Amino acid sequence: MKYRIEKDTMGEVKVPANKYWGAQTERSRNNFKIGPIASMPIEIIYGFAYLKKAAAHANCDLGVLSSEERDLISTICNEILNGKHDNQFPLVIWQTGSGTQSNMNCNEVIANRAHELAGKVIGEGEKTIQPNDDVNKSQSSNDTFPTGMHIACYKMLIDVTIPGIEKLRDTLLSKSKEFESVIKIGRTHLMDATPLTLGQEFSGYVSQLNHGLKALKNTLPHLAELALGGTAVGTGLNTPKGYDVLVAKKIAEFTGLPFITAENKFEALASHDAIVESHGALKQLAVALNKIGNDIRMMASGPRSGIGELIIPANEPGSSIMPGKVNPTQSEALTMVCAQVIGNDVTISVAGTQGHYELNVFKPVMAANFLQSARLIGDACVSFEENCARGIEPNFIRIKELVTNSLMLVTALNTKIGYYKAAEIANTAHKNGTTLKETAVKLGYVTAEEYDAWVKPSDMIGTLKK
Amino acid sequence: MKYRIEKDTMGEVKVPANKYWGAQTERSRNNFKIGPIASMPIEIIYGFAYLKKAAAHANCDLGVLSSEERDLISTICNEILNGKHDNQFPLVIWQTGSGTQSNMNCNEVIANRAHELAGKVIGEGEKTIQPNDDVNKSQSSNDTFPTGMHIACYKMLIDVTIPGIEKLRDTLLSKSKEFESVIKIGRTHLMDATPLTLGQEFSGYVSQLNHGLKALKNTLPHLAELALGGTAVGTGLNTPKGYDVLVAKKIAEFTGLPFITAENKFEALASHDAIVESHGALKQLAVALNKIGNDIRMMASGPRSGIGELIIPANEPGSSIMPGKVNPTQSEALTMVCAQVIGNDVTISVAGTQGHYELNVFKPVMAANFLQSARLIGDACVSFEENCARGIEPNFIRIKELVTNSLMLVTALNTKIGYYKAAEIANTAHKNGTTLKETAVKLGYVTAEEYDAWVKPSDMIGTLKK
Amino acid sequence: MKYRIEKDTMGEVKVPANKYWGAQTERSRNNFKIGPIASMPIEIIYGFAYLKKAAAHANCDLGVLSSEERDLISTICNEILNGKHDNQFPLVIWQTGSGTQSNMNCNEVIANRAHELAGKVIGEGEKTIQPNDDVNKSQSSNDTFPTGMHIACYKMLIDVTIPGIEKLRDTLLSKSKEFESVIKIGRTHLMDATPLTLGQEFSGYVSQLNHGLKALKNTLPHLAELALGGTAVGTGLNTPKGYDVLVAKKIAEFTGLPFITAENKFEALASHDAIVESHGALKQLAVALNKIGNDIRMMASGPRSGIGELIIPANEPGSSIMPGKVNPTQSEALTMVCAQVIGNDVTISVAGTQGHYELNVFKPVMAANFLQSARLIGDACVSFEENCARGIEPNFIRIKELVTNSLMLVTALNTKIGYYKAAEIANTAHKNGTTLKETAVKLGYVTAEEYDAWVKPSDMIGTLKK
Amino acid sequence: MKYRIEKDTMGEVKVPANKYWGAQTERSRNNFKIGPIASMPIEIIYGFAYLKKAAAHANCDLGVLSSEERDLISTICNEILNGKHDNQFPLVIWQTGSGTQSNMNCNEVIANRAHELAGKVIGEGEKTIQPNDDVNKSQSSNDTFPTGMHIACYKMLIDVTIPGIEKLRDTLLSKSKEFESVIKIGRTHLMDATPLTLGQEFSGYVSQLNHGLKALKNTLPHLAELALGGTAVGTGLNTPKGYDVLVAKKIAEFTGLPFITAENKFEALASHDAIVESHGALKQLAVALNKIGNDIRMMASGPRSGIGELIIPANEPGSSIMPGKVNPTQSEALTMVCAQVIGNDVTISVAGTQGHYELNVFKPVMAANFLQSARLIGDACVSFEENCARGIEPNFIRIKELVTNSLMLVTALNTKIGYYKAAEIANTAHKNGTTLKETAVKLGYVTAEEYDAWVKPSDMIGTLKK
Repeated sequence: MKYRIEKDTMGEVKVPANKYWGAQTERSRNNFKIGPIASMPIEIIYGFAYLKKAAAHANCDLGVLSSEERDLISTICNEILNGKHDNQFPLVIWQTGSGTQSNMNCNEVIANRAHELAGKVIGEGEKTIQPNDDVNKSQSSNDTFPTGMHIACYKMLIDVTIPGIEKLRDTLLSKSKEFESVIKIGRTHLMDATPLTLGQEFSGYVSQLNHGLKALKNTLPHLAELALGGTAVGTGLNTPKGYDVLVAKKIAEFTGLPFITAENKFEALASHDAIVESHGALKQLAVALNKIGNDIRMMASGPRSGIGELIIPANEPGSSIMPGKVNPTQSEALTMVCAQVIGNDVTISVAGTQGHYELNVFKPVMAANFLQSARLIGDACVSFEENCARGIEPNFIRIKELVTNSLMLVTALNTKIGYYKAAEIANTAHKNGTTLKETAVKLGYVTAEEYDAWVKPSDMIGTLKK
Repeated sequence: MKYRIEKDTMGEVKVPANKYWGAQTERSRNNFKIGPIASMPIEIIYGFAYLKKAAAHANCDLGVLSSEERDLISTICNEILNGKHDNQFPLVIWQTGSGTQSNMNCNEVIANRAHELAGKVIGEGEKTIQPNDDVNKSQSSNDTFPTGMHIACYKMLIDVTIPGIEKLRDTLLSKSKEFESVIKIGRTHLMDATPLTLGQEFSGYVSQLNHGLKALKNTLPHLAELALGGTAVGTGLNTPKGYDVLVAKKIAEFTGLPFITAENKFEALASHDAIVESHGALKQLAVALNKIGNDIRMMASGPRSGIGELIIPANEPGSSIMPGKVNPTQSEALTMVCAQVIGNDVTISVAGTQGHYELNVFKPVMAANFLQSARLIGDACVSFEENCARGIEPNFIRIKELVTNSLMLVTALNTKIGYYKAAEIANTAHKNGTTLKETAVKLGYVTAEEYDAWVKPSDMIGTLKK
Repeated sequence: MKYRIEKDTMGEVKVPANKYWGAQTERSRNNFKIGPIASMPIEIIYGFAYLKKAAAHANCDLGVLSSEERDLISTICNEILNGKHDNQFPLVIWQTGSGTQSNMNCNEVIANRAHELAGKVIGEGEKTIQPNDDVNKSQSSNDTFPTGMHIACYKMLIDVTIPGIEKLRDTLLSKSKEFESVIKIGRTHLMDATPLTLGQEFSGYVSQLNHGLKALKNTLPHLAELALGGTAVGTGLNTPKGYDVLVAKKIAEFTGLPFITAENKFEALASHDAIVESHGALKQLAVALNKIGNDIRMMASGPRSGIGELIIPANEPGSSIMPGKVNPTQSEALTMVCAQVIGNDVTISVAGTQGHYELNVFKPVMAANFLQSARLIGDACVSFEENCARGIEPNFIRIKELVTNSLMLVTALNTKIGYYKAAEIANTAHKNGTTLKETAVKLGYVTAEEYDAWVKPSDMIGTLKK
Repeated sequence: MKYRIEKDTMGEVKVPANKYWGAQTERSRNNFKIGPIASMPIEIIYGFAYLKKAAAHANCDLGVLSSEERDLISTICNEILNGKHDNQFPLVIWQTGSGTQSNMNCNEVIANRAHELAGKVIGEGEKTIQPNDDVNKSQSSNDTFPTGMHIACYKMLIDVTIPGIEKLRDTLLSKSKEFESVIKIGRTHLMDATPLTLGQEFSGYVSQLNHGLKALKNTLPHLAELALGGTAVGTGLNTPKGYDVLVAKKIAEFTGLPFITAENKFEALASHDAIVESHGALKQLAVALNKIGNDIRMMASGPRSGIGELIIPANEPGSSIMPGKVNPTQSEALTMVCAQVIGNDVTISVAGTQGHYELNVFKPVMAANFLQSARLIGDACVSFEENCARGIEPNFIRIKELVTNSLMLVTALNTKIGYYKAAEIANTAHKNGTTLKETAVKLGYVTAEEYDAWVKPSDMIGTLKK
């Protein structure tokens, strides 16, 4: 492998000759061999590309960067955003907690690539633009990294998470309507209870997701606040007047998302409550999705010795040993994702508590966990929708059979003969293995005609819509 | 001890003669000897009192309960709310997960107390009002318990949590203004960085609490949705038309809080995402408060061999062995509370995932953890405010000394002589133990006059306000 | 209310006249109004009583305390251990994180009670023994509190947790034997699978609890290490030679438990990994118990429209609205406890990470969460055993019906006709709603005689015991 | 791209022609587009390679597989273990929770590669060996996946985690000895306390890691138990007699690790408490490492305005804006890892609670989180050791200055003049900004000679070694 020499304020470093990165990236690459290489999420790098471009524009507009420099930086940022330089970012999550070297990785790649675009040989002559003084102008790692992570997280929510959830929500809603006249037994404590419709059951799932989406959207304004302009400690040292507002406006323009400059830059560097807040909503959605995925697999259990009320798509052979077995695999993937998100929430909370003075230095771990959760929820909802939810069908025969046999239909008699006599009927039928009707009549509490008139599953499901 | 006989649908039970509770409460008391007695939070009982009263009113308005019955029930609910019957609720959190016996505990106490108010002897004659048919009319445990817990949790947030946080926030805000001209060293990665004012530092705390309060308030509409009217499985079986809307209106009236009937009763019974959502905001506040409490104790550390920038009130002798020691005990209590809330959040998430079919049966553990967190945060903020925050004073001498010595003032030279020369100055001064100024001049990068003109802490803190 | 004046190094404090506690307790009581009063677990106080008595003995043996003082202190510690002074400890968990004032609470109560026992009037004359110089001799809060919490936690495990788990384990083991010939369908992914016996299923639960008990016992040696003798920072300042070993021996003698002096006192003050370690095992047990409790409620679900393979005791009427309903309430209490323990584990981990320099100041929250978990697991196992496990009966008819219908019996044909043909049989039977046997014969893969010879549930369950 | 047709019991599937995998792998690849591709940890695949090879050997020894088949399978497993087929395993973590398709991925790759090795064209003619009937002989996904994950996890602990921790522990131990005479101020509650040596401080870290290692090793026997031989539901259906014991012996032989067959196969499939148990120990180590990493960064804080007692290696320029800044980046990486492990522990606990009946279907998420934690802890310890711990040096001048100034040296006077007078000295000196000695003498409690004789830091640090 061929190398060239790069320098930083600590001295010379040998860097692979075919890479754009410089001394600081190489130092970090060697000093943090923790876990798989290049684990820093690429979305963070793209977030940096947006902000470096925006900073170049703002700096130029405010007279501290030339339009040539601006254009060079912009061009390269666009290359990065087009995925042209993905292999130029070798650093890991488990580096300095401010992500300083990931910021420098961006600065160095842009500076060296600029040198190349300017027709020079990398490593030779004075750099066309300086990584610290030009690319990083009016910036610090301390405000760029949180800005990059807010951009990355916000975009992931908008591009992946929310559309994924909405897609599943829409399908569940249409299933809820499709199933609105399928009367089935209700179950509380896993035990037979009074009936409802399958559509009502699914409407609960829809409502959970709607509330979860609303909760998630409630968190977006905080996430839209960008630290950029605070520089080293939040004071904005070494930035031109008006820069913070302007650079946020540029980022909003370039991303098409409603970013604004953070109201308080000291908070924006020293704590990442916005990440904690939004991930809290992701965790709520995980809680909801776990319930939904779990219910569906329980209702689809069987085919002969389980509940068997739902038929779900058979996507893969379910067993390497049991022939013909089909499993609720989408529910399993979904609930595993939920477990992951619940754990990630703890990582993010723990990391969030540990800001010290002017800086929280758990930024990369917070960003990485957030992006994983947001991606997984979005993807898993799409997978569950496409490969399970849209194909769910009621097992009408089984549903009918189970609701008809239920002793809890007796509840309809409460308002006619009182709770205590109704209980006596149910208990007697249970003990004797008889039907409710014959028991009720035999005990003399109702006539057969009254029973038929009063105990109708179809009358027991619609009170709220009366 | 004297006993009387009470009955339920399972038969007779001996109950302490001096208690109002009945058979079901006694069964639960005997069947769940788990942890300390009466651990079900009293706020839940009061929540039940509000809803039983509201149900009695709604039932009466809708013609299914007499005004005499309504008045009896109302009177007793008021007694409960006045704390007159606190010792009548002996049940524990660790009972049935629907809280059925706590609902029955309320029904039984009201029914027996009503019998007494009607001039009868408890346990003799037919009950004046029936616990199931009358007190519980148009209700199920499955919709009353979540209603009671929403009332209790919402009230706790309004009465204790939010005022506590706001009290602390207000004091921190006034400190932020008071300290706005106290220039001190900033610290990132715990290391010396560029200066800021102590007021700016405190403004970050204020901003964290403001964002946290906003996040918490965002969750209130979901928490305001009440399950009542859904009865057993969410269909509203055995409720009169219009009951759900009316009973929520009554509860809103009696509590003075903006409760409404849940949009979807199936969700409201089967999942408790509203609890997950609001507690997520409490957890965010815990993350914020941990940062604040921790920063303050670090800045107050010493008195002679620590950071020593803040002087906090000396409230208790700090050591049983080290004479004259004073400790940041309020920070310690506060951060312990934060650890508790972060753990409670996991308990609530785990419990929230486990709704099955039409009912989540982890209600009591969710409610108890929520109420503990909400209470602790509110109380801890008040305690921290009264016994620490309001008494915080800057140690001016120490603050001046530390900012003056800092090598990071060199950052002001970046825009004059470039990052690399500035770094050389700092590194040289650090190595030789010299001052920045003498080093800068000696290296020939600036004159003494330039140094004095360019490196002024007071010029380094206000860029954002320019 | 009457008061007397008590003093400490900060000055005078008014204390309720009828209480033994002194100035420091009263200060803490006033400074930390966070959550319910006296929330510091009484077991911690008893732990202090053991150690104060042991310290008095060790100090006397080593010649730094008189035998009269030793006897006075011992007598009062015994009174405390007999529950005579429970109302003398009003402090909360949420105080200083070293528990200094709870140590002082003990010192003050002992000193004032000693004054009384010596025939003096509390608050008058010089104290017969001094709280700091005598009761606290050779001690610091920093080593007494962790010692008290180790004693309390260890005792709780031995007295409550382990016996509770063993009681449940023994019953499950006897059920496992009782059910060893009850052949039932197995379920994987909640779907019908090959058969096993109900006894085998229960043997898995027994194995989980046995492994959990072993894991818990593995943690006891670390928990047996006591900090006492480290005093303020772990160096043992102001203790006589040999004191640390001797005082641990005394504690072992008084408690009957194998306590020893900590190998490294710096660790024992600055971190509480022993608490983290033991609670980790409690969390593992919670994970196991959740699985067990959940399985049992699923298998007992019904009675008519669920799985219905198990009959569990009917302990309480299951619904305030649905007459005759019976619920798996013990499973619910148990799994709620598990959720609590899993959350407490996070609290303890978070608190455990935050030792700073020579002291971890999250001691009370760690101790309180540990004791809650240990108590709840023990109590919940006993409750579950007494009110559910011991009464579990198989529903033989239902079990037979479900295993007979299962398509997964086809797996027995794998080794005869291969996986692919076996799968074709199962898939065809499922599609047509036919039995395996008729399908297998119709497809021509086996004769009826072969089918009967090869597909026998009773041959499918015992391979491992062949 | 070219494709070939592969078949399974559900029909035909198009598979990339240049891949060995078959129909089931391809189905899973298409059905679970959740997160990055191929996220199933390669260590799991290697675990499968070990077990497939061991099963082939055991099956052959027991007469159910030919030696030719055994050799073919063995050869290919060795190829897999040599990393030759890493790109043949495209599946994700978020698939079926039993990992069935990852098992089939192995079976398919082995079967097709065998066909190729046998000189045939993949996709043409009958397969030389069948994926289900031959490669998967005497196996089920339900016992192979947990076996593969135990192998992978155990190996990671032995190969990466434990050596990494031991390496750091050894360096801290040697630092502890190196620093045994460096007397410094102790700090409790972050406040000045009595002195100790820097070596004593480091000895606490060593003790934490030793206890953590012991705790981790305690969990290995459970992790050494292998599910293999249980097949579908734990009964061992379709395995030859003696297979379970033999196959575990083969795995032990091939891996060089002490694996044994699980005592109870029902537990081994239905729950993964062994994973929960071992990860609990990893979490304990994370708690310990967080304390250590945090202490070191606090003691190294400065260089001029912090604590500054330690000098740590300067590895990277610490700021893109503040020239000459050096940060405790290794502590930051380490504590971020700790936060991740604490969150992963929750994921694993949540997943562990959710075994249903005969199978826990959260296997992949449990394995992936375990492997991540085990890898990260091992790597981070090595990184911290190499790039920080081994280079730590005391800042002697600063250490001396801080201990000399401390008011807490007064504690040495407790046993001479009593706690109260000593406190008066400290409080007076603090108030007046005077030294202890002048204050003590001025107050008349000691003479200057007595002070010098009694208050010696070097006498305050060694009591325990007397």
